Amino acid sequence: MTIIYALDIIGTFAFAISGALVASKKEFDLFGVIIIAFVTAVGGGMLRDVLINAHPINWIGDLNYIWTILAAVVFTFLFKSKIAPLSKTMFLFDTIGIAVFTLLGIQKGLAFELHPFVALVMGMVSAVMGGVVRDVLTNEVPLIFKKEIYASACLMGGIVYLVTNHFGLSEWLQFFATVLTVIIIRLLAVRFHLQLPKIKDDIFGKTT
Amino acid sequence: MTIIYALDIIGTFAFAISGALVASKKEFDLFGVIIIAFVTAVGGGMLRDVLINAHPINWIGDLNYIWTILAAVVFTFLFKSKIAPLSKTMFLFDTIGIAVFTLLGIQKGLAFELHPFVALVMGMVSAVMGGVVRDVLTNEVPLIFKKEIYASACLMGGIVYLVTNHFGLSEWLQFFATVLTVIIIRLLAVRFHLQLPKIKDDIFGKTT
Amino acid sequence: MTIIYALDIIGTFAFAISGALVASKKEFDLFGVIIIAFVTAVGGGMLRDVLINAHPINWIGDLNYIWTILAAVVFTFLFKSKIAPLSKTMFLFDTIGIAVFTLLGIQKGLAFELHPFVALVMGMVSAVMGGVVRDVLTNEVPLIFKKEIYASACLMGGIVYLVTNHFGLSEWLQFFATVLTVIIIRLLAVRFHLQLPKIKDDIFGKTT
Repeated sequence: MTIIYALDIIGTFAFAISGALVASKKEFDLFGVIIIAFVTAVGGGMLRDVLINAHPINWIGDLNYIWTILAAVVFTFLFKSKIAPLSKTMFLFDTIGIAVFTLLGIQKGLAFELHPFVALVMGMVSAVMGGVVRDVLTNEVPLIFKKEIYASACLMGGIVYLVTNHFGLSEWLQFFATVLTVIIIRLLAVRFHLQLPKIKDDIFGKTT
Repeated sequence: MTIIYALDIIGTFAFAISGALVASKKEFDLFGVIIIAFVTAVGGGMLRDVLINAHPINWIGDLNYIWTILAAVVFTFLFKSKIAPLSKTMFLFDTIGIAVFTLLGIQKGLAFELHPFVALVMGMVSAVMGGVVRDVLTNEVPLIFKKEIYASACLMGGIVYLVTNHFGLSEWLQFFATVLTVIIIRLLAVRFHLQLPKIKDDIFGKTT
Repeated sequence: MTIIYALDIIGTFAFAISGALVASKKEFDLFGVIIIAFVTAVGGGMLRDVLINAHPINWIGDLNYIWTILAAVVFTFLFKSKIAPLSKTMFLFDTIGIAVFTLLGIQKGLAFELHPFVALVMGMVSAVMGGVVRDVLTNEVPLIFKKEIYASACLMGGIVYLVTNHFGLSEWLQFFATVLTVIIIRLLAVRFHLQLPKIKDDIFGKTT
C-alpha cells in the first residue's frame, strides 16, 4: 500500500526532526545533528533488520530514508524557531510515526516467518529503539523508560494487528485498526497523564 | 545436555531479576523494567549471535527466554521486598549464570568453527555484555569495568574449557571443570576483595 | 596493497592506545581497559560489517586485530607516562587511522555493491563509530558530536575517493588523494580551530 510508504516517510521525517532538535539543544555541530537525526529515524528499523537478518537493512536498501533525514535536518536548520511553537504538530507526527513503524515492524516480522509474539516485539523495536539510541548517544536516560504510555500504545496496536490479521480482515481494516489504536491510546495517555505502574513496593511488602 | 539448558534458564532468570532490580531503583515504569530485564538476560547472547551470524538469534529461536524473563519480572514485582535480603542467593544465581553463559558461548563459537581464541571471546561476550548494555541504558558507567574479578573469572573458566576440550575429556568433565572454575574464582575474588591492577602509573614512570 | 594493510594495523594500534588512555583515566581495571581499547579500535569496522552483512566480521576473520590491540594495551601499560608528552604523535597516528579506515570502509562498501553514497557512509562509520562506542561505554557524550572538523574530514576524503575511483585513476593515486585529503583537512581544522556550524538559531529567527 503506497499510503503506508508515504506514512513511513512522514514518520521518518518527524523522528529525524525530533532527533535534530534534541541534538541542537545539546550544542552538537552539524555532523552530530545529522547523526542523531539519523539514528532516531532509522535506528529502530535498523536494529530490527539486523536482529532478524533482513539484508539489505532499511536505509541501505532504500536511499529515500537518507534523503528524507537530510531534508529534515535542513528543515530544522531553517525553521528551528518556528518549530518550537508547533510542538503539538510534532507530537502528532511522532505519534503517527510510532503507529506506522509498529505496523511495518510486525508485518516484516511475520513476512520473515517469526512467531507472532516475536513479530510483535519487532514492531515495538521498530517504533521505540530509535529514540532509545538517540538518548544513549546524547547521554540521557532513555525517556521511554519513564514516559507516559508510549511503548504500551505500540504493544496494544500490535496486538490489534495480530488479531485483525488472524481473522483475515482486509488489509485496510488491519491498517486502520492498528494505527488508530496506537494514536488513540497515546492521545488519551497524554491527555489524562496515564502512566504505567512502577515497582516501588511489592504487593505484600512495604515501600522500600 | 538438558542440565545445561536448565542452568541456562536459571541464569536467564537470575540475570533478568538483577536487571529488573536495577531498573526499578531508577524508577523506570513497568515497560522500562521489562526492557532492562530483557537486555540484561539475553543481551550478551544476542550480541554474540549477531557477531557470528548465528540466525535465528537466541531469543528469536527459542521463546522460552522471553517467558523466563517475563516470569522474572512478575517475580520481582511480587517479591521485591523479599529479594533484597536474598542478595547472597542472587549473587549465587548470577555467578551460575555467568559460568553457564561462558560455557554456552564458547561451545557455540566452536560449533561455528571460530578460532578457539575468538570462541573464548564469545564466551565472555555472552557472559558479560548483557550487564554492560543494562548499565549503558540506565546511564551508568558499566560496573564490569571496575568490579572485582568478574570477566576474568569467565576468561579462566573459558581457558579451562578449551584445555579439557582439547584433551578430549568427557562432556561432563568439561562442563564441571569450566563452571566450577568460574564459580570458585568469583567466590574467592569477592571473599578476598581481589581486583585487577589499574594503569595508574607505568612500570618505569611515576604516578600521574 | 600491503601498505594499506600496514596502515590499517597502525591505525588499529593508535585507536587502541587512545581507548586505553581514556579507560585508564576513568580508573577502569585491566579488563575494562582492554575492552575499551578493543571497541575503540575495531568498533567502527565491526558495526560496518554487521550492517552490510560481511561475515566473518573484521576481528573474527583476522586475528591480527586482536593481537595488535593487546600489544597496544601492554604498550600503554608500560609507557603511560611517556605517551602523554607524545600527544602530537598520537594525534598523527589517530589521523592516519581515520584516513585509512575511511578508505577501507568505502572500498568494502563498493565491493559489496552498495550505492556509492551508502559506501561513503560506511567509510565514515568505519572511521568514527569506534570512538562513539568508546564514549558511550565510558558514559561521556561522544566527543565527535562537538569536535572540530573530524567526521567531515572523512566525508571529504571519501568524496575524493569516489571521484578518483569514478574517473579510473590508478589505485595508488586514489589511495594517496583520499588519505591526504583527510589528513590535510584534519590538520588545518585543528590548526585554525575550524568548527562546523551549530543550529543555535535559524536563518530567519532569533537565538533561542
